[in-house]
Amino acid sequence: MTEKFDTIVIGSGPGGMAAAEALVAKQKVLIVEKGAWGGTCPNRGCDPKKMLYGVVDTYLQAKLFAKAGMPAMGQLDWSKLMAFKESYTQQVPSGMQTSLAASGATTLAGEAHFVNEHLIEVNGATYEADNIVIAAGAEPRILDIPGHNYLKTSTDFLKLAELPRRIGFIGGGFVALELANIANAAGAEVHIFQHNHTLLEAMPATATNQLADLLGQRGIQFHWDTTVSAVDRDQGALVAQTTAGSFPMDLIISAVGRPAALNGLHLEKAGITTDVHGIKVDDHLRTNQPHVYVIGDIGSKRIPKLTGVAGFEGRYVANTILGVDAPITYPAIPFIAFTSPQLGQVGLTVTEAEKNLDKYQITVTPVGKWYSYMRLFDDQAQVTTIVERQSGHLVGAVVLAHDSEELMNRFTQIINLKQTPADIAHDINVYPSFLSDLPYLF
Amino acid sequence: MTEKFDTIVIGSGPGGMAAAEALVAKQKVLIVEKGAWGGTCPNRGCDPKKMLYGVVDTYLQAKLFAKAGMPAMGQLDWSKLMAFKESYTQQVPSGMQTSLAASGATTLAGEAHFVNEHLIEVNGATYEADNIVIAAGAEPRILDIPGHNYLKTSTDFLKLAELPRRIGFIGGGFVALELANIANAAGAEVHIFQHNHTLLEAMPATATNQLADLLGQRGIQFHWDTTVSAVDRDQGALVAQTTAGSFPMDLIISAVGRPAALNGLHLEKAGITTDVHGIKVDDHLRTNQPHVYVIGDIGSKRIPKLTGVAGFEGRYVANTILGVDAPITYPAIPFIAFTSPQLGQVGLTVTEAEKNLDKYQITVTPVGKWYSYMRLFDDQAQVTTIVERQSGHLVGAVVLAHDSEELMNRFTQIINLKQTPADIAHDINVYPSFLSDLPYLF
Repeated sequence: MTEKFDTIVIGSGPGGMAAAEALVAKQKVLIVEKGAWGGTCPNRGCDPKKMLYGVVDTYLQAKLFAKAGMPAMGQLDWSKLMAFKESYTQQVPSGMQTSLAASGATTLAGEAHFVNEHLIEVNGATYEADNIVIAAGAEPRILDIPGHNYLKTSTDFLKLAELPRRIGFIGGGFVALELANIANAAGAEVHIFQHNHTLLEAMPATATNQLADLLGQRGIQFHWDTTVSAVDRDQGALVAQTTAGSFPMDLIISAVGRPAALNGLHLEKAGITTDVHGIKVDDHLRTNQPHVYVIGDIGSKRIPKLTGVAGFEGRYVANTILGVDAPITYPAIPFIAFTSPQLGQVGLTVTEAEKNLDKYQITVTPVGKWYSYMRLFDDQAQVTTIVERQSGHLVGAVVLAHDSEELMNRFTQIINLKQTPADIAHDINVYPSFLSDLPYLF
Repeated sequence: MTEKFDTIVIGSGPGGMAAAEALVAKQKVLIVEKGAWGGTCPNRGCDPKKMLYGVVDTYLQAKLFAKAGMPAMGQLDWSKLMAFKESYTQQVPSGMQTSLAASGATTLAGEAHFVNEHLIEVNGATYEADNIVIAAGAEPRILDIPGHNYLKTSTDFLKLAELPRRIGFIGGGFVALELANIANAAGAEVHIFQHNHTLLEAMPATATNQLADLLGQRGIQFHWDTTVSAVDRDQGALVAQTTAGSFPMDLIISAVGRPAALNGLHLEKAGITTDVHGIKVDDHLRTNQPHVYVIGDIGSKRIPKLTGVAGFEGRYVANTILGVDAPITYPAIPFIAFTSPQLGQVGLTVTEAEKNLDKYQITVTPVGKWYSYMRLFDDQAQVTTIVERQSGHLVGAVVLAHDSEELMNRFTQIINLKQTPADIAHDINVYPSFLSDLPYLF
């Protein structure tokens, strides 16, 4: 017997969850999860990462404050740090499933396989729906090199019972840098092997170079233009064989991207087309099967793959299924590398703006001597603004600073609302706070 | 000889400074300062306080994180903490004067006395102007009791070379609580003598009671309904004689308000009228002498006395002098007690809203179990929102949380812009950040 639903959602991450919760008041909804309920973000992504990061960043700030009277500190206790993280993550799957079930959705644990474009099979039973939402996410890629079976992923890192002495990260993206920042602060010897000389693709080189300098000063070893060609095991240690020589390590993390988790879905049985980036979607987040939608990291789009985006798309798809007919338009999307300091970006990138300097004014302001940064010993803080010359509107910003979250969120507002300097000058913000400096930044 | 100016500004704090800087491009401006250039905020107010607070708050957070792997910590080093503060304050007066002079204003060190409504005397010379702006601020009040000569003020506290063992604060306002928070964290035995059973007048009792509990758990001793009637000296120690008994102390701070600094101005010679709160002003911030304006803490107004407000008023008065004719209208004004945790308020107060519950919906949300607060062990965090029932607009908010600054600033925006929940839901904020929870708060 095939059970019939209005909508089936495949994947219970922030995107699938948002869609299901928005639909369930008006529809019969099935949500299927093959792994931990809640998906990547709360179980093995942003949430546990920021729990570790918060402690680590406070530790680093406290050490910086030694000059301001902070007492001396020993090492972080990795096992307590991990137990802290687990105090959160251990209750995530049951909490998420309970919350979904309480909202009225039917929850089903298992792997979903398409049988045809309206039918999926899970644990041997079949389920049919008018609409299907694919929100199955992405998964860490293991570099395909000899010895790849020795490589671990960010998921493994976030569960490490003990901190290895030497950790190598392959890659220079968000995952590599954020985990390297944590491992370094916790006392590991940290190496980053990057095949070229760039970090964090979307970010401008002025900022990423400075971030690399600061992380380098803390002891993270960057191996630029270095390709890891194989991993060997030698007397208990791993050895990264690279174009710059051999490096003995105790752990090597493959952090070379998170491809769409297409395996096992049997999309071909539903006639759904994909490309190298994921499932192809139109401007309504529909696949070539117009009743099958795609949310979040599994889609082939030029939109940053972020929890906030997945939630936004989940709510959009729910509205579309419920009858609203408008192409998706995204607001400005901020994102931050949670390193120490943080590096954040929103709106138009510097790289894009540099292609059209007649149209855009790019201003880099070192703010390390400003009160809000000086008092944190955040000497190297810098803010980049991109203003459209004709309108005077802010269209993009980059912040490299110890705590860039408030400023990034505020710049996002300014861009979305097209606020002018006069609008901003009329505000009274908490004084002193990061925002009380805003009139001098834009 | 009497030198003639377009505008004379008395006082170089954030209010006078803002007025002078806005006027100087178009006018001949004299600015007079009797004390340290820059006034209270950067020399002996919010800026040095937050330098100390930032270190202290990080220290307290690091101690909270002991359960999450943070290493054990000894005591803060008070002399280093003070040296850190002085590294900032020591360069303030010369920096401020240089900046004013560079802008084109004439700077004059000395005490200004009115001779008549257009003429002031400073250091024996006279200065005349079409417009005069009084921005002379407020000063700590020393309680008028026997032994008052033993009492010290916040200004003295911020210069303490050594931390006294036992410190008593008379008063339960912002100054008392913020300095008590610092002294307690730095290792002093701290007592607060409050004549009634309230703290922080503008704040709701639900929040101030909880703050008092939390500070009490950290060791701050609150003596409620206790009036200090005299201070004696006994063998090197001070003794606070109170309605609840005698308390030996090593330092007693009078933190019972900051009255307008009227003394010495000779306002009567200009025929300018005052009341018990300060100089009387109309809706254009004019005194009864319409060419004499008042900015900031010296005015008699029901507006919070804050740096941000003074700057706002300074820019307003400059525009008014330059010919704009409109009564002043204030945006929502946020303010925070920089304690650990912080307690912030913006917009309509709970007390006002409670008088009209037909019109306003007050919602208190405990958020201590939410991710952003749980990960900081900020178990007792709570957010209060006040929504106008008919319009659905947020009109006021209170936040009690470890770090309330971003949320307070964002609530201020929401109130000013009359943003709706739908506006807010359309934003993508940095995830996770305090603002990524916003859709669940309003």
